[in-house]
Amino acid sequence: MLEDLKQEVYEANMRLPKLGLVTFTWGNVSGIDREKGLYVIKPSGVEYDDLKPEDMVVVNLKGEVVEGKMNPSSDTPTHTYLYNHFPKIGGIVHTHSPWAVSFAAAKIDVPALNTTHADTFFGDVPAADALTKEEIEEDYEGNTGKTIVKTFNERQLDYEAVPAALVSQHGPFAWGPTPDKAVYNAKVLEVVAEEDYHALQLTRQNIELPQYLLDKHYYRKHGANAYYGQNNAKSKEHAAHKK
Amino acid sequence: MLEDLKQEVYEANMRLPKLGLVTFTWGNVSGIDREKGLYVIKPSGVEYDDLKPEDMVVVNLKGEVVEGKMNPSSDTPTHTYLYNHFPKIGGIVHTHSPWAVSFAAAKIDVPALNTTHADTFFGDVPAADALTKEEIEEDYEGNTGKTIVKTFNERQLDYEAVPAALVSQHGPFAWGPTPDKAVYNAKVLEVVAEEDYHALQLTRQNIELPQYLLDKHYYRKHGANAYYGQNNAKSKEHAAHKK
Amino acid sequence: MLEDLKQEVYEANMRLPKLGLVTFTWGNVSGIDREKGLYVIKPSGVEYDDLKPEDMVVVNLKGEVVEGKMNPSSDTPTHTYLYNHFPKIGGIVHTHSPWAVSFAAAKIDVPALNTTHADTFFGDVPAADALTKEEIEEDYEGNTGKTIVKTFNERQLDYEAVPAALVSQHGPFAWGPTPDKAVYNAKVLEVVAEEDYHALQLTRQNIELPQYLLDKHYYRKHGANAYYGQNNAKSKEHAAHKK
Amino acid sequence: MLEDLKQEVYEANMRLPKLGLVTFTWGNVSGIDREKGLYVIKPSGVEYDDLKPEDMVVVNLKGEVVEGKMNPSSDTPTHTYLYNHFPKIGGIVHTHSPWAVSFAAAKIDVPALNTTHADTFFGDVPAADALTKEEIEEDYEGNTGKTIVKTFNERQLDYEAVPAALVSQHGPFAWGPTPDKAVYNAKVLEVVAEEDYHALQLTRQNIELPQYLLDKHYYRKHGANAYYGQNNAKSKEHAAHKK
Repeated sequence: MLEDLKQEVYEANMRLPKLGLVTFTWGNVSGIDREKGLYVIKPSGVEYDDLKPEDMVVVNLKGEVVEGKMNPSSDTPTHTYLYNHFPKIGGIVHTHSPWAVSFAAAKIDVPALNTTHADTFFGDVPAADALTKEEIEEDYEGNTGKTIVKTFNERQLDYEAVPAALVSQHGPFAWGPTPDKAVYNAKVLEVVAEEDYHALQLTRQNIELPQYLLDKHYYRKHGANAYYGQNNAKSKEHAAHKK
Repeated sequence: MLEDLKQEVYEANMRLPKLGLVTFTWGNVSGIDREKGLYVIKPSGVEYDDLKPEDMVVVNLKGEVVEGKMNPSSDTPTHTYLYNHFPKIGGIVHTHSPWAVSFAAAKIDVPALNTTHADTFFGDVPAADALTKEEIEEDYEGNTGKTIVKTFNERQLDYEAVPAALVSQHGPFAWGPTPDKAVYNAKVLEVVAEEDYHALQLTRQNIELPQYLLDKHYYRKHGANAYYGQNNAKSKEHAAHKK
Repeated sequence: MLEDLKQEVYEANMRLPKLGLVTFTWGNVSGIDREKGLYVIKPSGVEYDDLKPEDMVVVNLKGEVVEGKMNPSSDTPTHTYLYNHFPKIGGIVHTHSPWAVSFAAAKIDVPALNTTHADTFFGDVPAADALTKEEIEEDYEGNTGKTIVKTFNERQLDYEAVPAALVSQHGPFAWGPTPDKAVYNAKVLEVVAEEDYHALQLTRQNIELPQYLLDKHYYRKHGANAYYGQNNAKSKEHAAHKK
Repeated sequence: MLEDLKQEVYEANMRLPKLGLVTFTWGNVSGIDREKGLYVIKPSGVEYDDLKPEDMVVVNLKGEVVEGKMNPSSDTPTHTYLYNHFPKIGGIVHTHSPWAVSFAAAKIDVPALNTTHADTFFGDVPAADALTKEEIEEDYEGNTGKTIVKTFNERQLDYEAVPAALVSQHGPFAWGPTPDKAVYNAKVLEVVAEEDYHALQLTRQNIELPQYLLDKHYYRKHGANAYYGQNNAKSKEHAAHKK
């Protein structure tokens, strides 16, 4: 069942330790088959060295395990909530990568301070509110997804253009069209969080990126006029497009 | 004599350099056989590359060497004190891991600022008082254990729920039901100390975890209602437990 | 066409991940054949693991692709501008190395605070102005080169003696007589940016290098009286040149 | 000539990149044969990957090259000065390790803030004065040794008990009874500089180690009553020395 997707999700999970994003078992990636309405997720608490593609657990959009011998990630209800409310995403990753966690602990957005940020995130990566006592007791993991979605709605953010969030006092979630792209976005978040931390210690004055620079870098890589990389029509003409 | 425990303690010691917790020979792990009242500890000042299971030294709860050709760790009296006063622990680790040492040097608790902390430590990891001149001269290593135990008593902390402490101006000690779990706890302490340092530089206002979030994360992994991982009854039902 | 230069530029590009200067594909090196007026540059968005010498793209000094199946780096117009305005350089490198980016984000020069800096950079490495809205919309990558050249002109800096610049809110560019030396300079910049950051957090008073120390270290390695290394006439006599 | 010492100095040099103490060629180790009055030092500007034992250069205590095809380190006059004025040392190392350089750039001592420091350095590691214009022009490398020795004399420090110094705006020098022990001391300095930096950012109040704790840790490892490690008479009795 969903063997290709299991392989893809397995490989995306295995990139987490290679990219320095996880300690021990503290991270998980999932990927969804939107047609079947089923997603595949890492089992809970399994060491990366021991993980196998066939260990992946299949879950439906009610959050029920459909196939799998092992327990799914304890964060499964968060993944379920996000897949239900962000209908265009194909993969989700949760880590406790240390720089993103530092901003989450401080309840501070990861601000857009350099063009690497703008290449991937079209604005600040928001720190969603920490959960209230009632939200924690009622449905902790589900409400973790809910606070992210609520933050995107309140701030009128486009989840495709800002494909990550921090949950305050907890850590980062990232997503994307595929599990692999979600992992990429999680790594970018970690890198810019590190750079932002140091920039903010050097100065806190007048360093937010202006909107026109955000626009330039974001649209250089995304959408119809993108010209970064090998897979778009605009790249060839770009090199010589001026003078 | 205690060959299985020697192997177990040896392997726990060898994890220290792999986890980035030691420079040179600056760390030691021990493990106890409670029935026999004997514990096994790394010899003093031996390079990790040269260490062998049979080098482990057997010590009794009076701190006397019972078996072993080499001298035990110079921190042996600290281990003895902790085994005598924390009767439910099965392993102890001492390192000079740099982030925990930075908090120890500043004589500041490693505060509970994120859920990774709460997963392992049910509250702040205390910075025990530095030893007085008299305590140092009388019995330095023994009193290093004593200041830890005194701090837990004075603050009414449960050493099973907060399985680590800093000794001010010195460094971290961690413990657990097994030597391997003690090493795990030492690594968690190092990771959260790093994250806490950066969070505290971003802001020092209003960032302590509330008790209800500590409760949630701690009991998600510990005790009768735990549902993280593969080895408990609650995990399977958790994934779909709401909606 | 230019097979030797392609190999040289390929090898210089492959040093970037080895030196810890790039994440993913975020960096590029070029090298020029001044006689032919052609330069060779990394293709856009290709993973380092997949890169081959024959993937390198040949570009002329108008910025037009002369040979190559792939699209050149999206930063090609910046390279073109710099080669046209800094006529003595033979190689250029652009990275998003994290410490240099942190200074770029803060729009702060990387100051000359230690002798490692002076060995390579004869003074502060300037943070060139971020581009204006008009400059970005008109010709983003070309004007990225222009703001660097403008900064060197305004501050009357010698681009051979200070072979690097930050572009504010973006990141570092470095150059040199060869692609390989440009990469070396990019690494030195990253190292001194890290050291400067920490020095500036310790104190911000009275720490700029005096001119005479800059002179000493810079001319110890550069010019007719250099005596560092194996390839100059002054080295042998130096060891015993005093007492 | 001095083949064993060349091998020893070569091996000590090769430990520098393994311990993360050097970038490129920025470091050098020497070792002395006190009976012959000759010392062996790394050649100038040679990559560690290319270094061979037979490349080592033999120098006398006037600083003259006695044997060797290559130029000795440009820092040779500093080594000469230190061997002449610190008559009991057997090896010297100079690096540009980044944490020590950060303190050097800030012209701040590496303070004794934790017991790891006290195990190796019996007090603060001093930041020697930066050289004056006259000192630089007269004999830069020789006077680099002179400012270190002057600092030890003025502060009445014992160079055997505090086996390292920073040269302000430059970087660290460390020494010891052998080249290998000098490298060890250079690594300890780098580790404690990192920990001190972070401790000082957490708090600057009341964190200097008291003399009695310095005494305890230093003499636990050094001198007639040392009991750390395997090679002293006191170790065995230590484990059970109290209660």
